[in-house]
Amino acid sequence: MVKPIAIIAGAGPGTGSAVARRFARAYPVVLLARSQSLDALVQDIQGRGGSAIGIPTDVTSASSMTSTIDQIKANFGADVRVAAAIYNVASKFTRKPFLEQSSEDFVGSLAPSIRGAFHFAQATLPLMLGADQTQYPPTLIFTGATASLKGGSGLSGFAMSKFAIRALSQSLAREFGPQGVHVSHAIIDGIIDTEKTKEYSREVPDSKIDPQWIAESYWFLHTQPRTSFTHELDLRPYSETW
Amino acid sequence: MVKPIAIIAGAGPGTGSAVARRFARAYPVVLLARSQSLDALVQDIQGRGGSAIGIPTDVTSASSMTSTIDQIKANFGADVRVAAAIYNVASKFTRKPFLEQSSEDFVGSLAPSIRGAFHFAQATLPLMLGADQTQYPPTLIFTGATASLKGGSGLSGFAMSKFAIRALSQSLAREFGPQGVHVSHAIIDGIIDTEKTKEYSREVPDSKIDPQWIAESYWFLHTQPRTSFTHELDLRPYSETW
Amino acid sequence: MVKPIAIIAGAGPGTGSAVARRFARAYPVVLLARSQSLDALVQDIQGRGGSAIGIPTDVTSASSMTSTIDQIKANFGADVRVAAAIYNVASKFTRKPFLEQSSEDFVGSLAPSIRGAFHFAQATLPLMLGADQTQYPPTLIFTGATASLKGGSGLSGFAMSKFAIRALSQSLAREFGPQGVHVSHAIIDGIIDTEKTKEYSREVPDSKIDPQWIAESYWFLHTQPRTSFTHELDLRPYSETW
Amino acid sequence: MVKPIAIIAGAGPGTGSAVARRFARAYPVVLLARSQSLDALVQDIQGRGGSAIGIPTDVTSASSMTSTIDQIKANFGADVRVAAAIYNVASKFTRKPFLEQSSEDFVGSLAPSIRGAFHFAQATLPLMLGADQTQYPPTLIFTGATASLKGGSGLSGFAMSKFAIRALSQSLAREFGPQGVHVSHAIIDGIIDTEKTKEYSREVPDSKIDPQWIAESYWFLHTQPRTSFTHELDLRPYSETW
Repeated sequence: MVKPIAIIAGAGPGTGSAVARRFARAYPVVLLARSQSLDALVQDIQGRGGSAIGIPTDVTSASSMTSTIDQIKANFGADVRVAAAIYNVASKFTRKPFLEQSSEDFVGSLAPSIRGAFHFAQATLPLMLGADQTQYPPTLIFTGATASLKGGSGLSGFAMSKFAIRALSQSLAREFGPQGVHVSHAIIDGIIDTEKTKEYSREVPDSKIDPQWIAESYWFLHTQPRTSFTHELDLRPYSETW
Repeated sequence: MVKPIAIIAGAGPGTGSAVARRFARAYPVVLLARSQSLDALVQDIQGRGGSAIGIPTDVTSASSMTSTIDQIKANFGADVRVAAAIYNVASKFTRKPFLEQSSEDFVGSLAPSIRGAFHFAQATLPLMLGADQTQYPPTLIFTGATASLKGGSGLSGFAMSKFAIRALSQSLAREFGPQGVHVSHAIIDGIIDTEKTKEYSREVPDSKIDPQWIAESYWFLHTQPRTSFTHELDLRPYSETW
Repeated sequence: MVKPIAIIAGAGPGTGSAVARRFARAYPVVLLARSQSLDALVQDIQGRGGSAIGIPTDVTSASSMTSTIDQIKANFGADVRVAAAIYNVASKFTRKPFLEQSSEDFVGSLAPSIRGAFHFAQATLPLMLGADQTQYPPTLIFTGATASLKGGSGLSGFAMSKFAIRALSQSLAREFGPQGVHVSHAIIDGIIDTEKTKEYSREVPDSKIDPQWIAESYWFLHTQPRTSFTHELDLRPYSETW
Repeated sequence: MVKPIAIIAGAGPGTGSAVARRFARAYPVVLLARSQSLDALVQDIQGRGGSAIGIPTDVTSASSMTSTIDQIKANFGADVRVAAAIYNVASKFTRKPFLEQSSEDFVGSLAPSIRGAFHFAQATLPLMLGADQTQYPPTLIFTGATASLKGGSGLSGFAMSKFAIRALSQSLAREFGPQGVHVSHAIIDGIIDTEKTKEYSREVPDSKIDPQWIAESYWFLHTQPRTSFTHELDLRPYSETW
């Protein structure tokens, strides 16, 4: 039996890294990121006894994604199986008056994340079908946000990409669920606790979402058997109003 | 006081034509369509004493939309006001297994409707602001579908575009509502009664949505004062399960 | 052909009165209220040339509702038809810490509106079936609120009754829609402009929902043919955040 | 430090028992049921080395619930803390034409589950506040169903109770979340695999929800820290259409 792998697209600091570390406790992980160096994360995982490789990938490009899959097969064998694929590529967040947005601002922030989600799903799903070869049902998870459920003033492009990814997740869940693939969508509603958000909401303790618990939640989703799939859950600090 | 106009993008048979005829009872209408000839509809409206012009436009192209607005200003004056703008451009509907969709199928069906909605909103909203010059609050309506609320197997691209347009509608409603513009989204859940759908559900009387009543509903939305805006409504035949 | 009537439960000042006046332009109206005197409204409607009777009714009591229907039949004939029935009985709104609520506070505010909705629907639906006898499909409308969609701190009982009434509306729409009855739910999201709310939001013009436009919206719902039923719409001032 | 307990209302076969067994691995559990004998379950848990007591309780009666809390305090000390409280009392499911439902059918099936949820939450929340005394944030979970989100023909009473309990869950989450209590709602969408449902969907393997995985999911919710609360998740077999 071939050891299955996990693939994380958008393996930046915060959620991506935490998810990578969590899944590396069970699987060799493949980390994809466009611009960020993945070396530190790879070393960190290896230092903990895990196995990781980083592949610079532009998921918004079909050819880049294809060559990434080629590299994965070169590395893990042509018959590599994917136990979990996590799409965590951030949609560009810009709050800007709608009439001041250029077509590039708008479509430029929206289209890549949508295209990326499409390419990522198309590249990984074929390696997930034939579920009986892995311990847990193969799992495809999309990271969502508050704006997955609700538009916002000045947030058209961001909300559109987030709504669209939720639509993709729901559609794939309905198509691939009956084939044993678990497709799920996580609504991350609140500020994630990262280096960058250190200064936000300092005064209220524990008011930012812990990336490790996003990771734990994704891992939990992954372990659910096909009798009992969760297709959507929210994650929100206790102090968040919503 | 300048007489305001109504603009209908996607003035094809069915909903688009019906909406055009309805708004033509109150305003000169500008009909936009990419490929369809608009002549018959223009003549029909003129024959009923209305005023209509058709402008072949590719709303998915910024430059095409810009030149359309130029033509509109040439026709109605540089200070033309838009009383109502209806975005009724169909998202390409294809039910196809996800893994058989090419990147062109997918992004090719999704991106245009999203881009079109963006260009259309950006071109028309500036002509709507300054609400006090029209009898009813200027109104921007997007036509949605069942798939605006719910993904479906084999329907990823379609659902993504529909979810995204709903996100746009919600975001613009929150941004432009306080400026007096009424932005609304209509969920058309069922088969629309057109020439093309003649053969469907023949046996159950009245089981298809009447385009004229879509038009009446849009007109009703348009007449609501700013004290009482409806931002979303569904339209569904009595016999529809949902 | 028997002239059909409209019945409005919760015909207090604000929405109820406005709806009564609107439907009285087309139908004799029967006004139900528990405690309020209905005389002034009845006289007002008669003064405008309409026909109205008020029947003091406790809709939360089965026997009170039964005797009301008896009175209606005595008045309009045993074969009276109902063109429109509007359930506008307010759920008791109390914002109070959950642990300070007595069982009476809680169940006492929740159960009556639920029970009332049940009795009202059960009493009126039989007089609506056989839709072909009225000009428009017979229509049963429930008035909802922000809390129909979203719970709130300190608002458990209110939100529960509002969620429950929405569930009733959806269930009846699915059961009676195919029989030609139009069941609809209106989400009134904002402060309604009444005598009592005069002092709220004074500074922002038009920031309260106009009851007359709630009435117009209900009337519009009523006129929709069975090809094109709206089952839910929201009503919200342009200045409302949501 | 006092050892906290878990309380499960509706500890019948299926979900209730599975949840009881799962939480008994960490806490002494108190099982509440109105009519069912709890002896077998208590013995089963004790046989696995856990600690359990059963208290016959009618949660729909305030006095019964009060005396239950008295018994709990007599047993575990007046300063007993509740780590987790699970409200799993079934709403009476009856699919019956609306007009054939008696007031007793209707309010009789609806009111008890709502009242029960109120009494249960009121009795347990005071024993949860002061969250710092337990390892995980104290957790109050309500079991929901498909009908928590969507009404159905002939299902008015059931849907109303399920919508209402969801409203309660959301309202309590917003009120008690900031005080460190995790309130969550689980939408169980599908047939649960129990003795009673043995004959359903036999031909499709794994097509019923495994109660043990409902239990695992509730346990997972319980372990989430206050930085990262999930307030709603669904559970659904891979083969379910939705």
